[in-house]
Amino acid sequence: MKAKEIEILKNNGIDTLYQLILRYVAISDDEWKYCQSKFSSSYFPKKTMLLDQNQVCDKIFFIASGLLRIYFSDERGEEKTFHFCMENTFATDYESFLKNIPSNFSIQALENSVVIIVTHEMLQSLYVTLRDGEKLGRLITEDYFFMLNEKIKAFYMHSPMERYKAMNIQFPGLMQRVPQYYIASYLNISPVHLSRLKYTLKKKNPNG
Amino acid sequence: MKAKEIEILKNNGIDTLYQLILRYVAISDDEWKYCQSKFSSSYFPKKTMLLDQNQVCDKIFFIASGLLRIYFSDERGEEKTFHFCMENTFATDYESFLKNIPSNFSIQALENSVVIIVTHEMLQSLYVTLRDGEKLGRLITEDYFFMLNEKIKAFYMHSPMERYKAMNIQFPGLMQRVPQYYIASYLNISPVHLSRLKYTLKKKNPNG
Repeated sequence: MKAKEIEILKNNGIDTLYQLILRYVAISDDEWKYCQSKFSSSYFPKKTMLLDQNQVCDKIFFIASGLLRIYFSDERGEEKTFHFCMENTFATDYESFLKNIPSNFSIQALENSVVIIVTHEMLQSLYVTLRDGEKLGRLITEDYFFMLNEKIKAFYMHSPMERYKAMNIQFPGLMQRVPQYYIASYLNISPVHLSRLKYTLKKKNPNG
Repeated sequence: MKAKEIEILKNNGIDTLYQLILRYVAISDDEWKYCQSKFSSSYFPKKTMLLDQNQVCDKIFFIASGLLRIYFSDERGEEKTFHFCMENTFATDYESFLKNIPSNFSIQALENSVVIIVTHEMLQSLYVTLRDGEKLGRLITEDYFFMLNEKIKAFYMHSPMERYKAMNIQFPGLMQRVPQYYIASYLNISPVHLSRLKYTLKKKNPNG
């Protein structure tokens, strides 16, 4: 990627974050100028590791463009995909970040990605400086709480087919961007089972 | 229970909540007086339903004394215990509460319980009135986010034995207070499997 293209993507990333913040709270021009002076964004080529399992996760990543994967290795060394992080969402191990403890997860770029990095120091300064900083923090935490809550309800209450359908709603277009074995691992089913689900749906809705 | 005993329990409940808030943020005497004027607590005899599945959960319950259980019925009508709520913790379906959507859960008193009830209107007025109201909200939400996060990690990464041990740390003394089939249901194992876990541990540590 050329330097100029990266620069455009970075600026675009900052604008995207601005739009996201506005969905939660009001923010004045001065406040936003302050934010801009704090935020920095980085370009990570496909396959870059942004966090290694057992490392402390000391950053929150806002994905301006690209795609990240959060995963872990189980006791048999098998990789399990925990979450996909698409454009305009955050990726982090929030517990590791807040408690300064080793993470159980790894985070990797599945595509070339432009990511805005938020550190502890930046987050604290936003909480203190923005009039609605704490509120912004609360509302975003609530949204990620909902995400975990859905995940747990899916475990208890939803069939693999329902989980597959929910995944396609949560991550539109993901199926075309990601190797199928990551998808199967995310759904906690075998790749063969995943093929069968796709086949069943296709038979029901051949033009879908 | 006599009226006077209930009154003592209620006051004690308010004090307990005060101590809990102080663990998160500073609060002035005036602010606390304002809170006291807002909070009300209620006595629920054992077996009372505080929330029915499919109802909107429009309250947050702070348990001053007693024990609540959050559970749901699966598609076969079988009850699954999702969470136990002990003294000094909150019980709610936070997603149902915040989004005003029907809850997938029921909440029931497993023991006679004194509970402080927080409504939407009260919560919003706390956010606006307390200097650190939003911060308090964020920090408590973070703690409940951690709880869900642990639950998910337990699903993926922990054996039934590890989940059993973690439960005993999270809910000290619970084993003596709750029917064993609720415990088995919470651990997502059969009652026979639970007996086997207890037996294995007892053999390893006969005086434990």
